[in-house]
Amino acid sequence: MSTFSYPSRLLEDAVEQFAKLPGIGQKTAFRLVFHLLRRPVAEVEAFSQSIERLRKEVKYCQRCNSISDTEVCYVCSDSSRDNTVICVVESIKEVISIEATGQYRGLYHVLGGVISPIDGIGPSDLSLDLLEHRLVQGGIRELILALSPTPEGDTTAFYIYRKFEKFGIIFTTIARGIPIGDEIEYTDTLTLGKSITHRVPFGNGKE
Amino acid sequence: MSTFSYPSRLLEDAVEQFAKLPGIGQKTAFRLVFHLLRRPVAEVEAFSQSIERLRKEVKYCQRCNSISDTEVCYVCSDSSRDNTVICVVESIKEVISIEATGQYRGLYHVLGGVISPIDGIGPSDLSLDLLEHRLVQGGIRELILALSPTPEGDTTAFYIYRKFEKFGIIFTTIARGIPIGDEIEYTDTLTLGKSITHRVPFGNGKE
Repeated sequence: MSTFSYPSRLLEDAVEQFAKLPGIGQKTAFRLVFHLLRRPVAEVEAFSQSIERLRKEVKYCQRCNSISDTEVCYVCSDSSRDNTVICVVESIKEVISIEATGQYRGLYHVLGGVISPIDGIGPSDLSLDLLEHRLVQGGIRELILALSPTPEGDTTAFYIYRKFEKFGIIFTTIARGIPIGDEIEYTDTLTLGKSITHRVPFGNGKE
Repeated sequence: MSTFSYPSRLLEDAVEQFAKLPGIGQKTAFRLVFHLLRRPVAEVEAFSQSIERLRKEVKYCQRCNSISDTEVCYVCSDSSRDNTVICVVESIKEVISIEATGQYRGLYHVLGGVISPIDGIGPSDLSLDLLEHRLVQGGIRELILALSPTPEGDTTAFYIYRKFEKFGIIFTTIARGIPIGDEIEYTDTLTLGKSITHRVPFGNGKE
């Protein structure tokens, strides 16, 4: 199927729409549309409506800017969580990943991006005013800067640090090191270097 | 993201719906949903509505059973095509593939499946009555059986041959051979055998 010649405009439209999604080519798009064509109408409706509803009805938490079905998200409204620590992340993707670890009991702050002059994203495009508002209200002890180790992530982390250091809080960043299960031999030199510089105590019940 | 814990039921629904599609896992589903979440509402509406419209408004050609926006598809209603030859295929996928070659000027007949007892698909589930109706009307000289070289495809081809041989038409099947660009050395023995048995004249303007 090098070139497509569609017997139906409806079919062509649906394939074109799918092919606009990232990582979905023309062939995969056609395969997915062909699959949906053979499913019951109710099932296809459930599919299309779940997407439209999400986009139209989605809300963002008034405190942390994470996606939420309510005004305040389930993390921010959970009184058992440590509300003195905020983990600053780029998007809800990181919130979901960190929540999946079950290792973090503090709150989040979703920036909605990172500073990237090439993409035209400056500090004013991020939810920094909302973060400042949380710091002004007080009670925050620590900001964990959990941004990707890219130039954009590093720039954003540094910008946040400089902007909010006046609050006299602790700034931390997530540990870089050798992933569990990986071999030292195959670890890139930057990561291996970080893992030695930031080595942690061993024995006596630690680590 | 080994386990997902969603901050929103709407988000979870949309991801679940995408993950039902063939070849789309949980991670890819989330990536696609996350992408749509950042697109304009109108674009997401166009996506979801094109799918729903296709499923609800799709028609099948009254003659060849191919997908069509009209009662009779564009191939069947094209008077410049050779209406004495019918290429019998499993689905519209093959119609699109063969049309893309630009090498075929006859008509099609879409069976809507192949005989597969394991999947509970018998001859009565295919559009064979419609095909018989076309043969009864007369004017058909040749049936090209363009089915996949699987046990199901072979069974279906043989079934059609036995059912319709009484019409005294020519039955052909598409040529099996070495794909253009492939090397003889790496061709499987079955295909290579077929390509020698069904060798074609060479030279004098042929092939």
